[in-house]
Amino acid sequence: MSEAISERIVLAARPQGAPRVTDVRLERLPLSAIGDGEILLQTRYLSLDPYMRGRMDDRKSYSPPTPVGGVMEGEIIARVVQSRHPGFAVGENVAGRLGWLTHTISDGTGLTKLDGRFEPITTALGVLGMPGLTAYAGLLEIGKPQPGETVVVAAATGPVGSLVGQIARIKGARAVGIAGGPDKCAYALDTLGFDAVIDHRSPTFADDLAAACPNGIDVYFELVGGAVWQAVLPLLNEFARVPLCGLIAEYNAPSAAAADRLPATMRAVLSRSLTLRGFIVREFWGQRPTFLDEVRAWIDEGRVRFREDNVHGLANAPAAFIGMLEGKNFGKLIVAVDDAER
Amino acid sequence: MSEAISERIVLAARPQGAPRVTDVRLERLPLSAIGDGEILLQTRYLSLDPYMRGRMDDRKSYSPPTPVGGVMEGEIIARVVQSRHPGFAVGENVAGRLGWLTHTISDGTGLTKLDGRFEPITTALGVLGMPGLTAYAGLLEIGKPQPGETVVVAAATGPVGSLVGQIARIKGARAVGIAGGPDKCAYALDTLGFDAVIDHRSPTFADDLAAACPNGIDVYFELVGGAVWQAVLPLLNEFARVPLCGLIAEYNAPSAAAADRLPATMRAVLSRSLTLRGFIVREFWGQRPTFLDEVRAWIDEGRVRFREDNVHGLANAPAAFIGMLEGKNFGKLIVAVDDAER
Repeated sequence: MSEAISERIVLAARPQGAPRVTDVRLERLPLSAIGDGEILLQTRYLSLDPYMRGRMDDRKSYSPPTPVGGVMEGEIIARVVQSRHPGFAVGENVAGRLGWLTHTISDGTGLTKLDGRFEPITTALGVLGMPGLTAYAGLLEIGKPQPGETVVVAAATGPVGSLVGQIARIKGARAVGIAGGPDKCAYALDTLGFDAVIDHRSPTFADDLAAACPNGIDVYFELVGGAVWQAVLPLLNEFARVPLCGLIAEYNAPSAAAADRLPATMRAVLSRSLTLRGFIVREFWGQRPTFLDEVRAWIDEGRVRFREDNVHGLANAPAAFIGMLEGKNFGKLIVAVDDAER
Repeated sequence: MSEAISERIVLAARPQGAPRVTDVRLERLPLSAIGDGEILLQTRYLSLDPYMRGRMDDRKSYSPPTPVGGVMEGEIIARVVQSRHPGFAVGENVAGRLGWLTHTISDGTGLTKLDGRFEPITTALGVLGMPGLTAYAGLLEIGKPQPGETVVVAAATGPVGSLVGQIARIKGARAVGIAGGPDKCAYALDTLGFDAVIDHRSPTFADDLAAACPNGIDVYFELVGGAVWQAVLPLLNEFARVPLCGLIAEYNAPSAAAADRLPATMRAVLSRSLTLRGFIVREFWGQRPTFLDEVRAWIDEGRVRFREDNVHGLANAPAAFIGMLEGKNFGKLIVAVDDAER
């Protein structure tokens, strides 16, 4: 059995502010032969998601940080290419949080087999994966949109925001999206079916958002923080709900605000009986079967659409990741590590 | 029927920062004779509560501001001294949000008759009134303390904080209070039965609080904001709940913090799945019958204690109110406007 080489991208240094490509490095590592009960996996697709930025910092968060020298964290879709495990056959596709690498040996722990519902298979990393469940559970369990209410979400063409908007509409709410630039705005409006879309790059962004929400905001699905939060805050209605699962605008750098914005936020929470509720998707992992059934059906009925942004080759993952944090991707960012069908 | 004179305290000017006694003034106003369906009320007790500070500002909040020249808002207990209303007999006691005044004419709208459960009658303004319901509903409906959890509340000897701590203990949680100065701390510990009490005036306040909460904080009942929030934030456990119904430390002045504290709060909400939930007591008004039954029983069983801080004479209300915002009162602050039994 020939020896496999695993290429892997490891954390070389903790980023100061926005990550640079020199904060990671590509390593090549020979893998030993698999033992009894093990499988050799070849990565087909790697998912790039904003939460990974947090793992690069040495700051207490909901998961431990990636150690310097450790493989960058990330979910992959992989094919079983060798097996000495009775539960996995060569050729099967699995998903798991195995990191930014081309090959790895696994005993099967934490792997999910991907059945025919994941069509195309990359949906397991997006609309039918972690980002999809984030949108589904956060909106329905915390946001609880009611018919006629207004739901606002930023990163409206991304994997979370796009599903939040489409489910909001399925539930009878009005969906207002926020996106960057005319192409994304047009896509959110025309293809995803948002009722209104605001360009956060516009100099009149806050006024535009207010004009698009004449009845205020009942649910704000918070992914970004920063200037968008400042524009949303005055528009939140009494008893508005804010599911909070991301703060992309805050990940790279401390906020540049000169003044303390906390009192205004706390006063709004008090005077308008707001609910701010942070969540990590694992809290709702038990809902995955229902989520898969329901969202798969919505896709098949044409009520939910999704878009992927593909990059080819593991070596291009760092630059793509850095670009994503700057909003340069358009759709769910996926690295095709080895997408040849064999 | 002799003409009654109503003394009333009106807003003379909107305060700049902390209110001064010159921001209000005492007026004397002759009242006309009551008409059919009306009653003349003589105030016995006036309640002074922190929320009134917000009404003095011309800022959008959950209730409209008091107009300049208008009577200061507040809840009173009054005796019916004349009646041409079939539903009210002379000598009956009522409660209502009628303002800082000695006499007024009413058609009965918004008045609550006070029966024998309110013993002493001033409990209708405190432990069995608006502050009591605030503590009861906010803690049980939003805080949801579980046996063994840690509940923290500031202003621990005040009407809300003292009841929060005592109900937390009744529900099997550990209650940690925060108060200002040794007398209040001793009272909270010895008489109210808090498991631990921290003096917020201590230079080691944040460390003291951390030491008193070795298992972190599961429920923080937020009444004060400011420095206490900063000390509480790092101690909040995953899935902690923060009912928020007051920000006394922020009422008088914009926070003096030089840096923007919002990102740290939002990151904590995200990474620890916190719930921040503002509320105004009127949301839970429907629970008043259950609340009265339950808290009355706890008082009778000796499981809930309360303390009142009495000031005599309407003319002394402004100074007492200003002192309360500085934490100078010790217990529920009540102005005995005319407490002679007749």
